[in-house]
Amino acid sequence: MAKSKVCRLHELATYLGAELRGEGDHEISGVASLENATQSEISFLARPDYISILDETGAGAVIVSSKHAGLVRGNALILANPYLGFAKTTRFFDNQPEAVVGIHASATVNDNARVDESASVGAHAVIEAGAIIHAGVKIGPGCFIGENSVIGANSRICANVSIYHGVSVGERAVVHSGAVIGADGFGFANDKGRWEKIAHLGGVEIGDDVEIGACTTIDRGALNNTIIENGVKIDNQVMVAHNVHICTDSAVAGCVGISGSTKIGRNCTIAGGVGFVGHISIADRVHITAMTLVTKSITEPGSYSSGTGLMPTREWKKSAVRIRQIDDLYRQIKQLEREVIELKNQGAQE
Amino acid sequence: MAKSKVCRLHELATYLGAELRGEGDHEISGVASLENATQSEISFLARPDYISILDETGAGAVIVSSKHAGLVRGNALILANPYLGFAKTTRFFDNQPEAVVGIHASATVNDNARVDESASVGAHAVIEAGAIIHAGVKIGPGCFIGENSVIGANSRICANVSIYHGVSVGERAVVHSGAVIGADGFGFANDKGRWEKIAHLGGVEIGDDVEIGACTTIDRGALNNTIIENGVKIDNQVMVAHNVHICTDSAVAGCVGISGSTKIGRNCTIAGGVGFVGHISIADRVHITAMTLVTKSITEPGSYSSGTGLMPTREWKKSAVRIRQIDDLYRQIKQLEREVIELKNQGAQE
Amino acid sequence: MAKSKVCRLHELATYLGAELRGEGDHEISGVASLENATQSEISFLARPDYISILDETGAGAVIVSSKHAGLVRGNALILANPYLGFAKTTRFFDNQPEAVVGIHASATVNDNARVDESASVGAHAVIEAGAIIHAGVKIGPGCFIGENSVIGANSRICANVSIYHGVSVGERAVVHSGAVIGADGFGFANDKGRWEKIAHLGGVEIGDDVEIGACTTIDRGALNNTIIENGVKIDNQVMVAHNVHICTDSAVAGCVGISGSTKIGRNCTIAGGVGFVGHISIADRVHITAMTLVTKSITEPGSYSSGTGLMPTREWKKSAVRIRQIDDLYRQIKQLEREVIELKNQGAQE
Repeated sequence: MAKSKVCRLHELATYLGAELRGEGDHEISGVASLENATQSEISFLARPDYISILDETGAGAVIVSSKHAGLVRGNALILANPYLGFAKTTRFFDNQPEAVVGIHASATVNDNARVDESASVGAHAVIEAGAIIHAGVKIGPGCFIGENSVIGANSRICANVSIYHGVSVGERAVVHSGAVIGADGFGFANDKGRWEKIAHLGGVEIGDDVEIGACTTIDRGALNNTIIENGVKIDNQVMVAHNVHICTDSAVAGCVGISGSTKIGRNCTIAGGVGFVGHISIADRVHITAMTLVTKSITEPGSYSSGTGLMPTREWKKSAVRIRQIDDLYRQIKQLEREVIELKNQGAQE
Repeated sequence: MAKSKVCRLHELATYLGAELRGEGDHEISGVASLENATQSEISFLARPDYISILDETGAGAVIVSSKHAGLVRGNALILANPYLGFAKTTRFFDNQPEAVVGIHASATVNDNARVDESASVGAHAVIEAGAIIHAGVKIGPGCFIGENSVIGANSRICANVSIYHGVSVGERAVVHSGAVIGADGFGFANDKGRWEKIAHLGGVEIGDDVEIGACTTIDRGALNNTIIENGVKIDNQVMVAHNVHICTDSAVAGCVGISGSTKIGRNCTIAGGVGFVGHISIADRVHITAMTLVTKSITEPGSYSSGTGLMPTREWKKSAVRIRQIDDLYRQIKQLEREVIELKNQGAQE
Repeated sequence: MAKSKVCRLHELATYLGAELRGEGDHEISGVASLENATQSEISFLARPDYISILDETGAGAVIVSSKHAGLVRGNALILANPYLGFAKTTRFFDNQPEAVVGIHASATVNDNARVDESASVGAHAVIEAGAIIHAGVKIGPGCFIGENSVIGANSRICANVSIYHGVSVGERAVVHSGAVIGADGFGFANDKGRWEKIAHLGGVEIGDDVEIGACTTIDRGALNNTIIENGVKIDNQVMVAHNVHICTDSAVAGCVGISGSTKIGRNCTIAGGVGFVGHISIADRVHITAMTLVTKSITEPGSYSSGTGLMPTREWKKSAVRIRQIDDLYRQIKQLEREVIELKNQGAQE
């Protein structure tokens, strides 16, 4: 069953490594926003925009930076990065159900698979020959773990995840329901109009501390592996094609599509709905704004975009017509420039 | 097994509350388009464009408005909204297999879950402790229903759906296969380049008469719940992020992505592939056209768009170059305007 | 367990129908890129860009066209289409685990379903009444096959696929994990603001040699069937709406959305993230570039696009403002043209 925790403020201060100001014995049993928090809940101030709410909050304590600590009237936990403090506090109060250790009676585990005795394998899960499930791993109900795939220690594979053969997942990873790792890449050779399938002999290599969202798909490589390095966070419904390589600590938001063999650098942040064409390379520390199509390699850190702004549809229709004509507009301007120069010259000659 | 129905036209008229014109005893066993319908099938005229087909239809009866009833030569069922009549007729002839009441022998239902005796739980489904499955609910094979989640009366959860803990679904809802409700939102605090996970303590609240498409994902809230109100219809492959709130009777087409904490009003219609950035608010009765990126709040009802029109790629490449230069074009026009004014002034002085 | 193959070069030559040049007894046990291949691996030269690597490759043999065969220093297999040869070679070395023939003890197969004795049905799979599983089919663990659905000979349905009732899949098809075939289309009639569901009485018809990617959804038709013809290849996370019709040998890349009743011709190639509005028709041999929105029918073969090019966000913001003003720019140009003509006329009169 889900955990339900109560603690005293001084315990939270110790857990967070925060400076405590106020009543250390005050009892806290949850986290809430400044607007909603009650005396038994802790809140946080992460952005200056919310300073005005500080006066009215009913929170039993507020996580705050030293800069803003003076504005908190009640109890405070003072930290350099209050949003990080908030993140850690949510994990302290995590109410996620705990999986039962051991293999559920209805699970189907091949005799040649190895499941650590501290791992949990849910009902109706299937684990194939040669697979290795390390210590503390949770395999949710209905999961499929293919031949020779490896799940690193303390990773959580939620219900109904499909992991094909030859996939390795690192430690402390989270894979959400409906995700599919290791399906064949989309590779075919054209033979006079018909498509001849390329068997995908590579696998997928996923590092430590990676999170993979619900219904995200990561295809196996054609010859070499598809690679997701340590600390990468991938949201829901993301499509990672064969032989893509995403480097350490990059974050990819929902509905992104990354075409085959594209490499994304370290510490990149890719907003929702972005598309990457294949066989390109993105530098470290690149940000791509929502629904941009990345058509070429990016060699410099920075923020990149494509697309057009939101408009009422009626005006947009007119714009769309003009955008189709933009090359003509360009020519008309050039023509006008020539004519104006001519007129000026005539004026000068007079 | 699937139902197979035959009825007489007067029964259908009563079912639809329609005025019957013609042969009430005529037997009808299905629905078809005007082009394809045979004597044993009923068809409908919902749009004036199809009037020309009326003369040639082989339909045993046509659902039609009083305005166009005179154009129907055979049997007619006359109704104010023929398309609505068509919808109801398809449901009369619904051929969907009926689920067997009771818990399948292979399902895994926790002793502390409550399953109404009129509900159906399919093969290999898993229902965790504290979950409540109300009367008439159908849980498909391979579904996962997490701890303390509640499925309201007469809802249909299709095969292989994953519903995490702490999710409530209202009455008469439909959730299609592969959908995932209640996965963790995509929330992390950045700690010197590394991402620290925010545990998601909120749940998901889904109203009555909601439909959720195949492989759609609705994430749980960080602190409060993600909310889908009554009557909302969501198509396939839609991504609803943490703490999104969609109000009553809005419809969201396929492949839409809605970022965190965005609120969509009542009676909105969102076309396919639209993206919403986070933390914005959309008024009631807003329509967004396909593949638009909504970058800011919308306060007025109406239709909104972004993007550019379809072109042959060769022309589009030229346009794309010019669009990149559009700010220069703007400056050139301004410059030309200045020069023309100057030329005019010179002319006036002469 | 996965196959592991070793063969002699002359065997491969025979398998591929290639001309062998060099040491026919050389042993080959795998495929690799020119950069990575070792003496026991075969590689290929499909694009002239890679000619420079030929000199340095460690490959035991290279598949090459007769045009470039002279550039290969070691063993060569000479073929008209080396990329096709590569595709066939990957399949020769396919390392995919082989499914165990027969019905797994934990699978749930209805007494009225028919499973060929050469087929394989995985653990916890569910096969409903009236379904037919033909010879050599592999149904993966956790799959759901609905009533009266038919899977053609030698098709492979990977783990956790959901196929509703009344769906037919042809021979030698591959359906990847998480795919959903036959869910209800997104069809509702509006009744004074509320949505009345249209029951979907049609099915889905899928031809031979079709591939369907992970988490792709293909909805059933409203009255008639949704149709995917022979040889069509569909990547991951594609959304095919009700009554769509995709013709022979077209290929659809990841994250594409195709709205209801749209028809796509033969031998089309649709790049990633493309959207199609509903009720349009696309000619044969049309290519659509990535993330294009197709807003109208296309009657001529060729390549089509929409969208704008990638820019640094700072410049893009300026462009986006100008694009919003483009209709004004157009008017300003027209006004300038009039004024320049006037100025010229004045000059002529002087």
